[in-house]
Amino acid sequence: MSDDKLSITGEDSIRHVFSFDEGSRELIDTLGGKGANLAEMTRMGLPVPPGFTITTDTCRYFLDTGGLPATFADEMSRAVAALEQRADKRLGDATDPLLVSVRSGARFSMPGMMETVLDIGLNDVSVEGLAVVAGDSRFAWDSYRRLIQMFGKTVLQIDGERFEVAVQRAVRAAGASADTELNVDQLRALVDTYKGTVLECTGAPFPQDPFEQLQLAVRSVFHSWNTPRAILYRRQERIPGWLGTAVNVQAMVFGNIGGGSGTGVAFTRDPSTGTRGVYGDYLPDAQGEDVVAGIRNTLPLAELGASDPASYAQLLEVMDRLEHHYRDLCDIEFTVEQGTLWMLQTRVGKRTAGAAFRIAIQLVDEGIIDLDEAVRRVSGDQLAHLMFPAFDTTSDDEPLATGMSASPGAAVGQAVFDSPSAVAAAADGHSVILIRRETNPDDLAGMVAAAGVLTSRGGKTSHAAVVARGMGKTAVCGVDSLLVDTVARRMTTADGQVINEGDVISIDGTSGEVFVGSVGVVPSPVARYFEAGLADALEGSDEATRELIVAVDRLMTHADSVRRLRVRANADTREDAARARRMGAEGIGLLRTEHMFLGERKALVERLILAEEDHERKEALAALLPLQRKDFIRILEAMDGQPVTIRLIDPPLHEFLPDRTELAVRVARAEERGADSEADLRMLQAVNRLSEANPMLGLRGVRLGLVLPGLFALQVQAIAEAACFRQRMGGDPRAEIMVPLVGSIQELELVIDEAVDVLAAVSDAHGCTLEFPIGTMIELPRAALTAGQIAEAAQFFSFGTNDLTQTTWGFSRDDVEAAFFSAYMDKGVFGVSPFESIDVEGVGELIRIAVAKGRQTRPDLQCGVCGEHGGDPGSVHFFDGVGLDYVSCSPFRVPIARLEAGRSALGAGRSDTR
Amino acid sequence: MSDDKLSITGEDSIRHVFSFDEGSRELIDTLGGKGANLAEMTRMGLPVPPGFTITTDTCRYFLDTGGLPATFADEMSRAVAALEQRADKRLGDATDPLLVSVRSGARFSMPGMMETVLDIGLNDVSVEGLAVVAGDSRFAWDSYRRLIQMFGKTVLQIDGERFEVAVQRAVRAAGASADTELNVDQLRALVDTYKGTVLECTGAPFPQDPFEQLQLAVRSVFHSWNTPRAILYRRQERIPGWLGTAVNVQAMVFGNIGGGSGTGVAFTRDPSTGTRGVYGDYLPDAQGEDVVAGIRNTLPLAELGASDPASYAQLLEVMDRLEHHYRDLCDIEFTVEQGTLWMLQTRVGKRTAGAAFRIAIQLVDEGIIDLDEAVRRVSGDQLAHLMFPAFDTTSDDEPLATGMSASPGAAVGQAVFDSPSAVAAAADGHSVILIRRETNPDDLAGMVAAAGVLTSRGGKTSHAAVVARGMGKTAVCGVDSLLVDTVARRMTTADGQVINEGDVISIDGTSGEVFVGSVGVVPSPVARYFEAGLADALEGSDEATRELIVAVDRLMTHADSVRRLRVRANADTREDAARARRMGAEGIGLLRTEHMFLGERKALVERLILAEEDHERKEALAALLPLQRKDFIRILEAMDGQPVTIRLIDPPLHEFLPDRTELAVRVARAEERGADSEADLRMLQAVNRLSEANPMLGLRGVRLGLVLPGLFALQVQAIAEAACFRQRMGGDPRAEIMVPLVGSIQELELVIDEAVDVLAAVSDAHGCTLEFPIGTMIELPRAALTAGQIAEAAQFFSFGTNDLTQTTWGFSRDDVEAAFFSAYMDKGVFGVSPFESIDVEGVGELIRIAVAKGRQTRPDLQCGVCGEHGGDPGSVHFFDGVGLDYVSCSPFRVPIARLEAGRSALGAGRSDTR
Repeated sequence: MSDDKLSITGEDSIRHVFSFDEGSRELIDTLGGKGANLAEMTRMGLPVPPGFTITTDTCRYFLDTGGLPATFADEMSRAVAALEQRADKRLGDATDPLLVSVRSGARFSMPGMMETVLDIGLNDVSVEGLAVVAGDSRFAWDSYRRLIQMFGKTVLQIDGERFEVAVQRAVRAAGASADTELNVDQLRALVDTYKGTVLECTGAPFPQDPFEQLQLAVRSVFHSWNTPRAILYRRQERIPGWLGTAVNVQAMVFGNIGGGSGTGVAFTRDPSTGTRGVYGDYLPDAQGEDVVAGIRNTLPLAELGASDPASYAQLLEVMDRLEHHYRDLCDIEFTVEQGTLWMLQTRVGKRTAGAAFRIAIQLVDEGIIDLDEAVRRVSGDQLAHLMFPAFDTTSDDEPLATGMSASPGAAVGQAVFDSPSAVAAAADGHSVILIRRETNPDDLAGMVAAAGVLTSRGGKTSHAAVVARGMGKTAVCGVDSLLVDTVARRMTTADGQVINEGDVISIDGTSGEVFVGSVGVVPSPVARYFEAGLADALEGSDEATRELIVAVDRLMTHADSVRRLRVRANADTREDAARARRMGAEGIGLLRTEHMFLGERKALVERLILAEEDHERKEALAALLPLQRKDFIRILEAMDGQPVTIRLIDPPLHEFLPDRTELAVRVARAEERGADSEADLRMLQAVNRLSEANPMLGLRGVRLGLVLPGLFALQVQAIAEAACFRQRMGGDPRAEIMVPLVGSIQELELVIDEAVDVLAAVSDAHGCTLEFPIGTMIELPRAALTAGQIAEAAQFFSFGTNDLTQTTWGFSRDDVEAAFFSAYMDKGVFGVSPFESIDVEGVGELIRIAVAKGRQTRPDLQCGVCGEHGGDPGSVHFFDGVGLDYVSCSPFRVPIARLEAGRSALGAGRSDTR
Repeated sequence: MSDDKLSITGEDSIRHVFSFDEGSRELIDTLGGKGANLAEMTRMGLPVPPGFTITTDTCRYFLDTGGLPATFADEMSRAVAALEQRADKRLGDATDPLLVSVRSGARFSMPGMMETVLDIGLNDVSVEGLAVVAGDSRFAWDSYRRLIQMFGKTVLQIDGERFEVAVQRAVRAAGASADTELNVDQLRALVDTYKGTVLECTGAPFPQDPFEQLQLAVRSVFHSWNTPRAILYRRQERIPGWLGTAVNVQAMVFGNIGGGSGTGVAFTRDPSTGTRGVYGDYLPDAQGEDVVAGIRNTLPLAELGASDPASYAQLLEVMDRLEHHYRDLCDIEFTVEQGTLWMLQTRVGKRTAGAAFRIAIQLVDEGIIDLDEAVRRVSGDQLAHLMFPAFDTTSDDEPLATGMSASPGAAVGQAVFDSPSAVAAAADGHSVILIRRETNPDDLAGMVAAAGVLTSRGGKTSHAAVVARGMGKTAVCGVDSLLVDTVARRMTTADGQVINEGDVISIDGTSGEVFVGSVGVVPSPVARYFEAGLADALEGSDEATRELIVAVDRLMTHADSVRRLRVRANADTREDAARARRMGAEGIGLLRTEHMFLGERKALVERLILAEEDHERKEALAALLPLQRKDFIRILEAMDGQPVTIRLIDPPLHEFLPDRTELAVRVARAEERGADSEADLRMLQAVNRLSEANPMLGLRGVRLGLVLPGLFALQVQAIAEAACFRQRMGGDPRAEIMVPLVGSIQELELVIDEAVDVLAAVSDAHGCTLEFPIGTMIELPRAALTAGQIAEAAQFFSFGTNDLTQTTWGFSRDDVEAAFFSAYMDKGVFGVSPFESIDVEGVGELIRIAVAKGRQTRPDLQCGVCGEHGGDPGSVHFFDGVGLDYVSCSPFRVPIARLEAGRSALGAGRSDTR
């Protein structure tokens, strides 16, 4: 999006500064997340130190023009004056100075990405006033010293090392062991040194005017929006760069002024399990930064109740009010300053997947939200996490190390350190974990062979992470505490523990943890609920698990009751079909018939392909007929009464033949040895004849059906006879015949003409009524663009979004995921692989066009999707939005699609959970 | 299109029958071509036997419903009555019967595809009347005999063999040698036999009621619209099936009633050379069918002048009037019946390419049409034909055989009978003609190696024809008089002449002729005109050639003066660029830089690809820089002052490396022999690493530029330095940088960011001003769909219609043209390969979308096309219509594009020539 879409350059009528008592959480776009919630708490009458927020508009103006709006200086002066009045203190006052913090606060949280400056307002004069008010000179001078250091580094861009060196020298000169031991005089001297550094580095003295300090700090926060790390973070998180950040200026309160003071963070419920009751950490005599930094060990929140019952009671009351007000789990930061409670931040708290489901239902039962809202509060991604098996967390295993959760799941296997070893060990029947510093396309074969992948470098968009997610393979990435030595074939932990090739390790792709040895895997109780039903799943479960299962059950039931979009499964066997039904599938959206040409039937298929005479081909087809018929009977039985969309054979024929290069090498070796290679040679000739430069774009799908006589007719006959058989058995077979890779109505008409003849013949021969809809995949851009014509012949459309993504982008998944997707994600070309989540602007546009044109021709045209995107949460919302009738996905993802279809019907955004 | 779009089922207010004096040529949609022109001649007062036309609407009604409109019978009765009155004869009259012909006549000519019945109105009574009027009983009974035979076969669907056998028996019984020798009594007996056959085969006697004969004949013409051969013909010629045919009922006149009678066909000018003056054939004492059947040798038209000066003078006057009336070359059929001239048909005549140009300018000079119209009258296809070299037609070589002109050009070479022999002989430096019964994908390598292809089976849509046209290779197909024996490696003509492998033959892809030996090839004078200019081309040419060259010059000049669309050339070398300028190119639309990585530079490119360390890659790039710079300097010099669009490197890297299978076989063989294969092995590993399942859809274009550091920067630097050099030399270099295979604006922005830095650096270093537009290919559906975004970064668009066709249809040209395009054309999926002429509905829709969205963002966005479609006549009209700024094509096709751009500006249809 272009920069000027939201900029308001030259627009002077807009306000740039809002006092906390003037804002609200509705103004989050203007005030950012932190500012909006501080304003909300202020409006609620909660104890919030006074302050004001400078708007995101101001930031955009600043970034566009390099300056500030004409009215801004006045507005800020008035806001500071109002703040001084409310705090009853003055900036720079010699006796009781007002100190303020300056913090960034964007629309979307970008933790640690931007600047904060504390203790603004201290100078050579006010530091003495602070000493008097706090009754603690050392505290005052240490604060002043910290201000110059923080301000010097972040606002004045002085190398932080200069200050660190100075403080180390002061400590050594004082014979102390840490800066906490420096006394007031030593700190005064350090302040002088720091001021000298500032003068030397910037050519100007440290600004004594508090208002100047404040203005410089605000500009520096604005600037920090566009640091390289912030830009990279936004690119990866798909946060638009034009948003800009707000700045919050707030009166300082101190949790570190001796007894009766302290600071803490808390949640209104346990965010990791969802158990009811407040949960948090408290640190007496400390500032908020100390809790976050984790320098000292925190105490459980209840300790505050023992030491300061009044503040604790007030905090509990505040938290209860917040939860009712926000109608959700809240996450807060607070400070107690000499017995007075101050709220410094709140927001709706992040939580684990299990907690999300439990809390949603708790809030329903407490009358705080309704079931609609509860369904909006959970997500398909969370449900997917709950359905993966997990390591047995009751075991006492300490992780060896922890990295990024790059691709979920739990994997156990022998450590191997390169791709060939992985392939060899897997071929010997071992489960292996491939360990690399980082992976590249050369490691692909090893990744395919391994049960899981572990890397010491790279994050969630690294090659290993992207490729593993694409494969559905467990991966932990960026475990930088591990030293991987692929030459010596071992890895070493920070404390010297060594894992050699062949040692068994376990990796948890959901938590990012790595364990030595084989950790027990516990099946998911939620998966058991879907597989076996509520009663079975509840039996023998503990209380928390039972609450979780019931929550899932109630939320799924409600999602099903409100959703418009139907959910089918992709299934090729009787077993898959049965499983899909248990998962709630309402039919099969994609039955791939090519799987029926594999296994022991491959010999027949080879005969078919190699046939030189008509009668040979006919014999091969005739031999395949009863086998196919049996397959269809079984699946139609398992899905009785529900639609079963059967796709005629799609892949190119050479996929059923041996690899060309391997075969050529075998023939060459045999020739060199003078051995007989007649059969291989004949096969090689056939493979050469059929080989294609780009098989994805070759003789497959409907093209194959039109060029190879009898192939589609065989399949239609097998389907028809299977349906007749099921009818005679009293069943309700509902086959739908789907033609793959259609690009023009003429192709489809030719297939339909042939199919109609076959159906009529079978119908006559068996005396049954066959009224199958015949439709087409829409998986080529041309099919989407000419959908208005194609709908004249097609009775339904099914979007094959895998192929449609490949042709729309012009890249084949096989080739590009490994070759350049990680680079593309790093560079921000994609936020997520278009094979994982539908590319709304490109592929989505074709889907919109096809649905609109198709339904113009045939208003009741049934439209579905059978690509892998059918089970992707974000994509489900898109498909619902464009009016598809159903999505079809793998059986395991059917519950996820059901939930997201419900959320979409309830108006939840694509990823609108916290 | 659906059948009911134009049908008027149940619409009784529409007229179904038009007397010739009620119609006109404007009513061609309703009356068909023949009917409209008969009406036109009648309106002009020319001597046309009276008659009426039954409309195409009636045919559509009949084909939709199987019956005729309620009012039809009345209308036809009235029309017959009017016809009887005008002819002053009655159908079935015993003394002077009216006889009529019943002929089809569709909107577009479908020669020989549908039925004709003559002599309707004869029965047992009227035959005697005809005998009296004609004064020739034998003629009358022979006519009656012919009616029953023709009617029996075409209307009553009786096997024609039954009548043939009967006539042979009668001839034998009479002791005669041919049916022309049968006397009246023998013919009477034969009529009896025929009537018996009709009764036996249909269960009813031959209809004696002339009105019934007429009605049945009309229905049978309607039915013949949907015979398989008619459907196939329409499919191949892209004639819509819903059009239907009109039927013309016309009083018979006889050119075979003795002296003073005859029949002929004539053109108002010579249609093969364009020379002024009438031209035609005359056959005394004959019917029109005899001329067409070619049974007897015709006389030159002038002989009529000798035998019947009055009729001849009248004919000349009629032809002159027709040419002035139709303002074009006319083609007529006429009959003289006992000294009276009758016009039976006229239409605008077909002509050769050379005649088209000469006649268009003649008509201008005669004041009949203006130059605008003259340009509309010629076509790019005709111009292309004139630019091919041709065999020396002044030589006396008789063709050995003649087949279909499948792919134009002239080729001379040794006969070879299979693909491996073709490859081997070509490798030895021989020019070869590949001869096959028909080709299939196995013959591809041989077709590539051969100078021309000759097949004995298959037509213009056969595999050989489609593939040869795709390659631009000369081909003659379907020479069914040749017996091809690939085992004995020879072919034999109908009269026993044998051509053995190695014998030299010559094939003419424009005429379809095959010659023994090497026929001299004459260069095209029109090509010489474009290459060397008017004066050079005229020098030493004969009169006809001079007239042709001047005509081409005048028409090209006019086309250039009226066209809006600019024409550039695709050129990669200085020589191509210079040639393109001579052909009239206004710049280079596509300079492919990958060609600069071939030849002696391949070693450097291998180094670049195989580089493992950064510095190795940088060294390889640095070594390539001066070479690329030199290339660019030369081309910018040749195209000085005109835009040169330079595409950054596009193909995948492994295209520069050896073939994977060949290399693997070489390594295996070396290993088996214990030979050293270290270098090959290392190369094989690299090839394996880079090999892709679908190279078309892999790491190429912008993807390669983003993944391989320094590659695009090298190219941009070379371009920038070349431009600086040319500026210093006083030149006017106008480079445009084009990024290939862009799918999203993010990709383009990343490349532009890098390029802008490089341009600035070169600009600073050399003190020159570089203001290159940077734009993108639009060759992926996603680029077209998101063109509104992409235009924010791109300063121009160039449609790469080759790749866009591949991705839109999801097929790769390499794989599919040979594998199934001929089958697709036979089945009517395509009329023409979408790689030859733009697929307006699919690919064209994306172009429309992209132009609209791109110009919405950037109203002055320059849009061009650089795929091969840029030189295709039909496609040029489409590109002009959607508002592109230019097309770019191979230098040879630049004149064709210029002409078609002019025709498009003048409102000519895509293929609106005769």
